Amino acid sequence: MKKTSTFSGRVNQSPNKILDRLLLTPQFEFEKDKLLPYYKEIELTILDEQRRLHMLNEDEYLNLIKIIDDIDETNLFSDVEANMSDISFAFEEYIYKNSEHAIPKWHIDKSRNDFQATAMRMYGRKKLVEAINLLTSLYEVVIAKVDKYTMVVMPGYTHNQPAQIVSPAFYFVTIGEAIRTTLHRMEFLYRDINACPLGSGAMSGLEFSWDREKMSKSLGFDMPLHTALVSVAERDWLTKISFEFSLFGNKVSRFVTDFMKWSSHENGFIHLPDELVGISSAMPQKKNHTILERIRGGVNHLNSFLTDFMSSSQNTPYTNLVEVNKEGTRYLEDMFNDFSRSIILFKIYIDNMSIDEEKAYNSCTEDFFGGYSLANYLCDEYGIPYREAQKILGKFLSGEKVVTSNSLFTLNSIIEDERGFGPLKEKEFNSFLNPEELLKRKLTSGSTSPESVKEQQRVHIEYLRKYKEFLKDINKSNNYTFVEGGDSDGR
Amino acid sequence: MKKTSTFSGRVNQSPNKILDRLLLTPQFEFEKDKLLPYYKEIELTILDEQRRLHMLNEDEYLNLIKIIDDIDETNLFSDVEANMSDISFAFEEYIYKNSEHAIPKWHIDKSRNDFQATAMRMYGRKKLVEAINLLTSLYEVVIAKVDKYTMVVMPGYTHNQPAQIVSPAFYFVTIGEAIRTTLHRMEFLYRDINACPLGSGAMSGLEFSWDREKMSKSLGFDMPLHTALVSVAERDWLTKISFEFSLFGNKVSRFVTDFMKWSSHENGFIHLPDELVGISSAMPQKKNHTILERIRGGVNHLNSFLTDFMSSSQNTPYTNLVEVNKEGTRYLEDMFNDFSRSIILFKIYIDNMSIDEEKAYNSCTEDFFGGYSLANYLCDEYGIPYREAQKILGKFLSGEKVVTSNSLFTLNSIIEDERGFGPLKEKEFNSFLNPEELLKRKLTSGSTSPESVKEQQRVHIEYLRKYKEFLKDINKSNNYTFVEGGDSDGR
Amino acid sequence: MKKTSTFSGRVNQSPNKILDRLLLTPQFEFEKDKLLPYYKEIELTILDEQRRLHMLNEDEYLNLIKIIDDIDETNLFSDVEANMSDISFAFEEYIYKNSEHAIPKWHIDKSRNDFQATAMRMYGRKKLVEAINLLTSLYEVVIAKVDKYTMVVMPGYTHNQPAQIVSPAFYFVTIGEAIRTTLHRMEFLYRDINACPLGSGAMSGLEFSWDREKMSKSLGFDMPLHTALVSVAERDWLTKISFEFSLFGNKVSRFVTDFMKWSSHENGFIHLPDELVGISSAMPQKKNHTILERIRGGVNHLNSFLTDFMSSSQNTPYTNLVEVNKEGTRYLEDMFNDFSRSIILFKIYIDNMSIDEEKAYNSCTEDFFGGYSLANYLCDEYGIPYREAQKILGKFLSGEKVVTSNSLFTLNSIIEDERGFGPLKEKEFNSFLNPEELLKRKLTSGSTSPESVKEQQRVHIEYLRKYKEFLKDINKSNNYTFVEGGDSDGR
Amino acid sequence: MKKTSTFSGRVNQSPNKILDRLLLTPQFEFEKDKLLPYYKEIELTILDEQRRLHMLNEDEYLNLIKIIDDIDETNLFSDVEANMSDISFAFEEYIYKNSEHAIPKWHIDKSRNDFQATAMRMYGRKKLVEAINLLTSLYEVVIAKVDKYTMVVMPGYTHNQPAQIVSPAFYFVTIGEAIRTTLHRMEFLYRDINACPLGSGAMSGLEFSWDREKMSKSLGFDMPLHTALVSVAERDWLTKISFEFSLFGNKVSRFVTDFMKWSSHENGFIHLPDELVGISSAMPQKKNHTILERIRGGVNHLNSFLTDFMSSSQNTPYTNLVEVNKEGTRYLEDMFNDFSRSIILFKIYIDNMSIDEEKAYNSCTEDFFGGYSLANYLCDEYGIPYREAQKILGKFLSGEKVVTSNSLFTLNSIIEDERGFGPLKEKEFNSFLNPEELLKRKLTSGSTSPESVKEQQRVHIEYLRKYKEFLKDINKSNNYTFVEGGDSDGR
Repeated sequence: MKKTSTFSGRVNQSPNKILDRLLLTPQFEFEKDKLLPYYKEIELTILDEQRRLHMLNEDEYLNLIKIIDDIDETNLFSDVEANMSDISFAFEEYIYKNSEHAIPKWHIDKSRNDFQATAMRMYGRKKLVEAINLLTSLYEVVIAKVDKYTMVVMPGYTHNQPAQIVSPAFYFVTIGEAIRTTLHRMEFLYRDINACPLGSGAMSGLEFSWDREKMSKSLGFDMPLHTALVSVAERDWLTKISFEFSLFGNKVSRFVTDFMKWSSHENGFIHLPDELVGISSAMPQKKNHTILERIRGGVNHLNSFLTDFMSSSQNTPYTNLVEVNKEGTRYLEDMFNDFSRSIILFKIYIDNMSIDEEKAYNSCTEDFFGGYSLANYLCDEYGIPYREAQKILGKFLSGEKVVTSNSLFTLNSIIEDERGFGPLKEKEFNSFLNPEELLKRKLTSGSTSPESVKEQQRVHIEYLRKYKEFLKDINKSNNYTFVEGGDSDGR
Repeated sequence: MKKTSTFSGRVNQSPNKILDRLLLTPQFEFEKDKLLPYYKEIELTILDEQRRLHMLNEDEYLNLIKIIDDIDETNLFSDVEANMSDISFAFEEYIYKNSEHAIPKWHIDKSRNDFQATAMRMYGRKKLVEAINLLTSLYEVVIAKVDKYTMVVMPGYTHNQPAQIVSPAFYFVTIGEAIRTTLHRMEFLYRDINACPLGSGAMSGLEFSWDREKMSKSLGFDMPLHTALVSVAERDWLTKISFEFSLFGNKVSRFVTDFMKWSSHENGFIHLPDELVGISSAMPQKKNHTILERIRGGVNHLNSFLTDFMSSSQNTPYTNLVEVNKEGTRYLEDMFNDFSRSIILFKIYIDNMSIDEEKAYNSCTEDFFGGYSLANYLCDEYGIPYREAQKILGKFLSGEKVVTSNSLFTLNSIIEDERGFGPLKEKEFNSFLNPEELLKRKLTSGSTSPESVKEQQRVHIEYLRKYKEFLKDINKSNNYTFVEGGDSDGR
Repeated sequence: MKKTSTFSGRVNQSPNKILDRLLLTPQFEFEKDKLLPYYKEIELTILDEQRRLHMLNEDEYLNLIKIIDDIDETNLFSDVEANMSDISFAFEEYIYKNSEHAIPKWHIDKSRNDFQATAMRMYGRKKLVEAINLLTSLYEVVIAKVDKYTMVVMPGYTHNQPAQIVSPAFYFVTIGEAIRTTLHRMEFLYRDINACPLGSGAMSGLEFSWDREKMSKSLGFDMPLHTALVSVAERDWLTKISFEFSLFGNKVSRFVTDFMKWSSHENGFIHLPDELVGISSAMPQKKNHTILERIRGGVNHLNSFLTDFMSSSQNTPYTNLVEVNKEGTRYLEDMFNDFSRSIILFKIYIDNMSIDEEKAYNSCTEDFFGGYSLANYLCDEYGIPYREAQKILGKFLSGEKVVTSNSLFTLNSIIEDERGFGPLKEKEFNSFLNPEELLKRKLTSGSTSPESVKEQQRVHIEYLRKYKEFLKDINKSNNYTFVEGGDSDGR
Repeated sequence: MKKTSTFSGRVNQSPNKILDRLLLTPQFEFEKDKLLPYYKEIELTILDEQRRLHMLNEDEYLNLIKIIDDIDETNLFSDVEANMSDISFAFEEYIYKNSEHAIPKWHIDKSRNDFQATAMRMYGRKKLVEAINLLTSLYEVVIAKVDKYTMVVMPGYTHNQPAQIVSPAFYFVTIGEAIRTTLHRMEFLYRDINACPLGSGAMSGLEFSWDREKMSKSLGFDMPLHTALVSVAERDWLTKISFEFSLFGNKVSRFVTDFMKWSSHENGFIHLPDELVGISSAMPQKKNHTILERIRGGVNHLNSFLTDFMSSSQNTPYTNLVEVNKEGTRYLEDMFNDFSRSIILFKIYIDNMSIDEEKAYNSCTEDFFGGYSLANYLCDEYGIPYREAQKILGKFLSGEKVVTSNSLFTLNSIIEDERGFGPLKEKEFNSFLNPEELLKRKLTSGSTSPESVKEQQRVHIEYLRKYKEFLKDINKSNNYTFVEGGDSDGR
């Protein structure tokens, strides 16, 4: 292999062809595909500083702006001989080739390390904002779903057993709360990672008086990163994003687990349009909610990627490394895709599902859910000590396999045995058989009662407005052009 | 097995002995050991509400306060017959046994689910504050370490090769920055998780008008959790803490990897007192920095626990579960211990290490570090186009195995060949051989130059003050009594 | 701190007290608690060699045997001054102290590294055999469970929807198959790891002609490990065991997920004795199968430990390290405990559960399961092309919400419309409504039909015998004294 | 959306377009790209059975063979209306379309579930064999590397400090041993997973008397899988392969960590051709061994994929699921690629690296490595009790910063002080300063001495032959056509 002309230090050969095929060219293609706009933005920001620092005169400056503006995927190519299949070298090669006049100081005091760190971070920031946008649109769908179901009853489960009467609307505000707290963390995260590596050089800073503050603002960052070594050593913004995705994905996997139960043949609470169900090639009776399986399976990958990003730098030196910064970020695109795909599917599911109110209601009457409330009532209204009330109900329920309004007689007999009087009237007793009455008994803030759920929904509507405002601000400051509520792939 | 008297519903037997041995009693012991003070605090908070809601009269109230105050580890015992080896039942049993008068309404409208969630969260909150306290004390040690080493030179590495001259002080401000950003996140996290589950009941809220706002304040929380189901379904505060520990642990593992290199026989940059080194039983010449191995190995566990906590709820129903809330948190204590042990060791290491300045200096002169600066200089001062300057230096370095002040002649010859003049004076050239001069050439904010490092240290000192203030505030509001800078086990 | 007398090389101080408290003494206690018998066995094996190599005379030899035999947990203590809180040093200290005569060559050419590696491996081997023993006893319980349920019908699910009629017995042979393949792998694993590190010295071998072959046999190993460096660098036996536990635990988590569904209120297929169910303190109607939650939560930890053991050596030098060999194995005891606890609980659950045959049967008649078989039949018997038969059934099922024997008329009408004849007789049709008939239609090996299930059971009984034989052999060759079918904690 | 004609059960719409774009079509493309040959092979195997079972007559049979033979990537397309973007439906559609005559029974008693399971397993089996082939070629390179370096000396490290004299050849046999034990496990694994799901139907078996034994043989399997439900529920062959890759990758990461140290500027033991080193764009003096970073980073992903595959089925029902079988295997291709890429790079590195024998030798003389041997010698030869010999050497080494042959006087003085005589001759003492002498002192099997290393190499050569034989056998029985030693992408 012959010597490369421009970039040699002590090295006399171009990279090995297998290395090029396995490593360099794929890296080049990734950066060209994903990072090119950011590299251009960075170069343009640098140009301003180079003019200010008199590294470029006005002509050179204007000429370079034009050249850089022209760079696109059609004129940058991986070439192991000409540019070592490195995008920065290809950039440089392109610029020199297209520059009519000499630009002797154009490359002075520059490093690929902080450039790459900055471009990656700009890319990650945009993907984070896309995720926030998608979550906001999911939030909207979930909040809207509340309206119809505040007075609908269904069993709530603990330890996989029916425990309390709740409403589907209560469940939707619960999902809403999971989204709200996630957005709260993501808003913090956006600020946390929105600091700029540029100007940190190879690892220890630069030798001319570059204005890092100004450059960082110009690229939409809130500030420069404080310390040069941190700038080039870390890709922790990726791990942090990854964690938020995992954490929300984990909650999604749990909500979906509930939906799997609700949509089971035995529960039958959920109806889904045919276009969203899977069929069996052999068993004509089946309607499979495979979309739920895809969501759970999809968010599961997020945990694996979190492990991957974290472990890729574990036990490595704290500095600029290919191991961490390139190989370690190999799956970032997959992570972003798995997240957005799963959330889009989750949104479609929620948007299109409907509750079979009759089946849900029937489930609330097949078993007796009034025990908890009745114990409270016997104690509060009739002064039966609480644990004794429980004991009475225990005895009552051990005997009555099915509780109906006819069971009152049995209950009163037991109470009479234990306490010497049989207090309950039919109307009183029946209210504990009525799931809607039970739903309304819950009074505390955050509870399942219709009033409380509506209040929670109201709060969510305010938060939704707030997060849309936040999105508008960052979209503006970054010149992003999302369709509101749009999917992350722009559709 | 005979029937338990107090707690029976439809169940007629005490728990199986093997279950008791394997599950219930260990859980009881954990809660007694770690959660007892929080259970007491919760019961006392509840008492106030019960008085307000007229569930208790004044006598009952005062009497109960006294009884609960008296509960400690000497009078609560796991007993599968009497209390099903459940600490809440044991609590209740104790209270009934010690209560002279009837307290018929004392247990009305209460659930173990939100009690347990609240006690766990109070425990986790305290452990988080302990971790913040420990990090603050590490921060102090690291910042103090800067002073001595701002003008000391050593090689900085990228891709495992010497790349730039830096100072140990630059490295310490880098560690400081990792601590600062961690504390920034932990301060956010403290607020994020400081919301109270109490009053959420079993899963869907309560039936009396408990003032959740007031109860949450009384227990040191900023607010109640918004939604009842979230309160009992989630232990995500643990996953969140776990992530912050992992993330910081990951950085520690990298710093320690660097220290391992610095302390290698070949580098020899670090001296450590004998009381901190390990010896070989067979090889008398060895001094092992096994403390570094313990730190890296220790923080590695943090990632595993993050995986553990996250996966323990993956694919589970979103509700109160033993699987998530008890079995899933089995290793929280180990996680907190691994974190604090590793950080204490890291602090001891940094506090006690010293740099062998002579060896570090010699490493800076054995190879030629001036290439980057010299290319800048040739370009800026003598107008040699940058890539040509690089090429000249490439040729120069390919020829000169060892660069000394005598190498100037060779360099000037090459420049003359390429550019027609041989510009460099001896004094100019020698400055690129002098590591201290190279250190001072870095100008940008965040760089390794002594001025920049001192400025970074100044900023850190301010942040340290801020975080100490924050700690003081939360210690006060929670009645915590940490020794400032103390280890998490109180020594 | 004063100088330790015996063990000093270039080190002049005893270990730091905090290091002792955090690291050395806990390590000492672990090794004393778990490894002491193995250290003794190793020392005795070494003694034989030392006699053979004339390092010891007969008197010294006999005397040392006696001394070593006497060592137990009552006479070995962690002491940072006297033995650096190192168990090997404590051993040595004890032996010198109790030796009346000089034993000048007793310690020649020995290293702690291969000793520790050997003792750990012996410990791990025993724990593996305990696990095999436990699995064998689980296998027995599962196989026995088959008998009662070969002709019992219940729905089998795919994609969370009822799909085919199966029997509980079919499910138990499926669990049996998971156990069998696990035992197959564990038998291989036992041989794979049963190679002896002893004689590898610190990392590169020893200087006297120790007979490694003989020593390895004497300690119950099949052979010495081939390469000295491998011997001291690796704890991969632990990772390998950990993987098998995870893999089986993963299957258990899936079986338990099915049991959770079966035992749900809606399915109601499982009855469990009261002593195994959990109750609700507030909701008297509940019977929680929390034991299932504990099993799933328990096996989940196994994956985290696999991650932990693997990552503890990732990116570390390939040599003897505290990081890998001590810190990296910190949680091995917890892993073994989590495995055995979960498997014991799983065994108890299976042993004690029973199927509510009526409810299971009813589930098989509520929906129409005959579609698959009927399509086969229409095609095979009446020559209706298969996809057309499916289409006919699709149309049929879209119309008939509930399929009963009365539906025959509708079906025949559709067939007549499509094919011009209405072939099915009542008897024929009814057989597709009968779940027991459907069960018996499955013919292939490995299928759910009673004959096939019995054949599978028969094969399992043979394998069980084989694995018991294997266990007897290794118990004998290692002098293990397990109670057959006993729990791993010997009860 | 209009109704699909052929495949409908109770479903009246084609799948949703977004689902098609996000899920179905990508799945289709994956299966077409990777599984098509296996689907064809399965269909052909089934045809034989269908003829035997008289489901097809001879004409139909021959006609179908021809049609199926013609299927390739140019005539199968994802089409949500025509085939629901499902490859099995597309297959079927193609066959019906191209079949001149009716084939009424061709589709009878078939399920996609066991077909997909079988095709995936065939694919995985081939990828495993590719990996074995690659490892064998790595093995060959490593074994060949031994020859040159049996008498070359370099320091061996424990706890990151120089500990013993070893040879690079010793290190290569150590790598060889890691490969050998991996191949041993992979050979077992091949048999372990080489069992056939075909004939298991949807989950519970089939209704005609398919000969599963015969079909499994015809597809190159050793036997059918025993139990129908296991066949469709499990993709554990992937988890098992993944574990072996992780385990070997973990060892590779450790060997590479050592190479990173050896190739560090400070050690300088390794020379690499220029075509394999990376350069710095700004620092002309640098030669980065970034290939090592890529290997470590590459094998790190393997652990993440192991986590991913394992967790994708954790807590799922034990049955056929999209979640496990499709979404859960999303990254199998990436895993295989990461493995083969990393191993190819590792092979290239080892093949092309050479040891700088002079630098390695010098490292062995800069510090005193003779302590261990000298203590043995003083004890064995002069009867100085071992620990006293150690103490003497400790004192000696504390005083002598640099040990040369002149140090003998000091050593003898100390011995005289302690024991009353100063025994060592100059020639004796000097042998402990000579690294080659020290290398040869190690005698035990598996040690670093040249004889022992050569013996280990000899054993490896035999194993290599054995594994090549094994490969030849399975290549033959599966009609695989690997280039021996070829990379997994066939180059």
